[in-house]
Amino acid sequence: MKWEENVRKVEPYVPGEQPKTSNIIKLNTNECPYPPAPGVAKAVAAFKSDDLRLYPDPAASALTDCLSKYYHVPADQIFVGVGSDDVLSMSFLTFFNSKEPVLFPDITYSFYDVWAELYRIPYKQIPLNADFTMNKEDYMVPNGGVIFPNPNAPTGVLENLENVEAIVKANPDVIVIVDEAYIDFSGEHASALPLIEKYENLLVVQTFSKSRAMAGLRVGFAFGSKKLIGYLNDAKFSFNSYTMNLPTLTLGVEAVKDITYFKETVAKIVKTRERVKTELKKLGFSFTDSRSNFIFASHERVPAKELFEALKQAGIFVRYFPKPRIDNYLRISIGTDAEMDTLLAELKKYINQK
Amino acid sequence: MKWEENVRKVEPYVPGEQPKTSNIIKLNTNECPYPPAPGVAKAVAAFKSDDLRLYPDPAASALTDCLSKYYHVPADQIFVGVGSDDVLSMSFLTFFNSKEPVLFPDITYSFYDVWAELYRIPYKQIPLNADFTMNKEDYMVPNGGVIFPNPNAPTGVLENLENVEAIVKANPDVIVIVDEAYIDFSGEHASALPLIEKYENLLVVQTFSKSRAMAGLRVGFAFGSKKLIGYLNDAKFSFNSYTMNLPTLTLGVEAVKDITYFKETVAKIVKTRERVKTELKKLGFSFTDSRSNFIFASHERVPAKELFEALKQAGIFVRYFPKPRIDNYLRISIGTDAEMDTLLAELKKYINQK
Repeated sequence: MKWEENVRKVEPYVPGEQPKTSNIIKLNTNECPYPPAPGVAKAVAAFKSDDLRLYPDPAASALTDCLSKYYHVPADQIFVGVGSDDVLSMSFLTFFNSKEPVLFPDITYSFYDVWAELYRIPYKQIPLNADFTMNKEDYMVPNGGVIFPNPNAPTGVLENLENVEAIVKANPDVIVIVDEAYIDFSGEHASALPLIEKYENLLVVQTFSKSRAMAGLRVGFAFGSKKLIGYLNDAKFSFNSYTMNLPTLTLGVEAVKDITYFKETVAKIVKTRERVKTELKKLGFSFTDSRSNFIFASHERVPAKELFEALKQAGIFVRYFPKPRIDNYLRISIGTDAEMDTLLAELKKYINQK
Repeated sequence: MKWEENVRKVEPYVPGEQPKTSNIIKLNTNECPYPPAPGVAKAVAAFKSDDLRLYPDPAASALTDCLSKYYHVPADQIFVGVGSDDVLSMSFLTFFNSKEPVLFPDITYSFYDVWAELYRIPYKQIPLNADFTMNKEDYMVPNGGVIFPNPNAPTGVLENLENVEAIVKANPDVIVIVDEAYIDFSGEHASALPLIEKYENLLVVQTFSKSRAMAGLRVGFAFGSKKLIGYLNDAKFSFNSYTMNLPTLTLGVEAVKDITYFKETVAKIVKTRERVKTELKKLGFSFTDSRSNFIFASHERVPAKELFEALKQAGIFVRYFPKPRIDNYLRISIGTDAEMDTLLAELKKYINQK
């Protein structure tokens, strides 16, 4: 049909499977194995469904205010969206409008090239070093913007803050986005957040989906200069006035307020991650020093694809990317200790019989 | 700064005020004065907050399935988004990529030109007739797509289905979007929904925000041919995989399932609307024959702007648009009978003293 000529045709991003059966161990989308902060359940109990008849606060002030308090950043330097995907998508649309290519690593969050294609933004994928680290000089060439996850996904590799700052500093004429979906698992002083005071062109993006156990609520947020956040808000208000619904505003704040629970949850996951690293090593796996809530691992003998399928047979879902350079790796989310023990036992059984 | 050169700069849409004080009568954003269906409160009570740790179903099947059942349309011909604004915004991005201008009325939902500007889509505003009806021949010229609300906002005027079909039929090479946010208040056989079986290029958009009393939940939906919905879903999955959060999926279905409550609520609002029309006439107002949940009224003597401000002083918020052709009108949402009585008394008092 002729109308199809003017349709924006795209190859959509394919998210990890969300199986509807409940008796599986789900280690494929980096969700938190622990429930959200106890305040969330209380907020649900107190929720007045009659209030749903009214539009929510379009500025989502409840969320920006509590993030402002927690992170000590003025509320007008914080943007919130429907998951960090929404924040990143709006950022591509708002900031990446140059004729020069946007730069990002070849091994990275697989949504970046999808957004670039969607908005017809030229882009160039920069090969990571063999150890999956970034070569900062590669990002010091003419470009229309820079984006990279830190720690990287799916590798889990954390770039040190000096390298991150060097890239931001070398690119004052474009926007540099540091996508910190996993930063809460990276230890102290890993985030580029403090750099927003020095660099007007830096956007730091984080999410409630991993460390705050709220993937189901869809909340992402970004920090930047007042000017940058202003432009992002203008675009958002030109896209959809009310992106954050009332349940999101009401329940979301509870995931930020409870600092103790948040820190305990993150600490538990990091502890499990380090223990699983030791166990995987014993089984013949090698992996990057992941600073996220997943491990990116390759076995010395058994191909990743085979392990992926064997685990799936056993009801354990992990993630496998049939892509150049990483097609012999499994990305394994960190679950509870019990879930990880089942995974390790299954891997051991399968590998030993080979 | 040089980075600002490549920022997509836009003049954002300004939504109606959402005042934070509770002792006002809010008739400015066409919300439902009655609470959502009783099943919503039950779903809140049964909601398991622990489930929030997991990503929601990216296909939002719970919603498309229940809409499919209610409207007797296959689920693969239904698209859902974060309010009809999200649905419309994604539709502009997906379908309006021609060099010819997209056509819409000069008096219409004021987000259309904002989306066109955001995506750099050429557009042409077609003047409505003096009585705010559309002249269908105006839309039978070369164009890159057509969009109009039916009933129109802010006029409340309903185009009959023959005119709507004539426009769809005359434009087989582009997408025609009928934005039916208020259609549930328009009586039987007003919706273009049945036409999707005949016209592959027709998209019919509706919302939970008005008749279903769920503005705070953010749910909009669209019906179209399988092909059209497929393209829209591809774009959506290239924008943000998970737009509909878990509370939306869980509570949203309850607003669709309860057909009796829905019909009763709509009937009550329509009854109040017709009564208020009679009363406004007595006070010297003239207005279109609104088939929506608001009345677009002009007084024979007192300027709309003055009435708007007097009502605001009295704690009654209505909507006023300082725009050519409509700057002597008030758009008054239909509230409860008690709210409308207060409004009428306030108007009477003010007008009589002039």
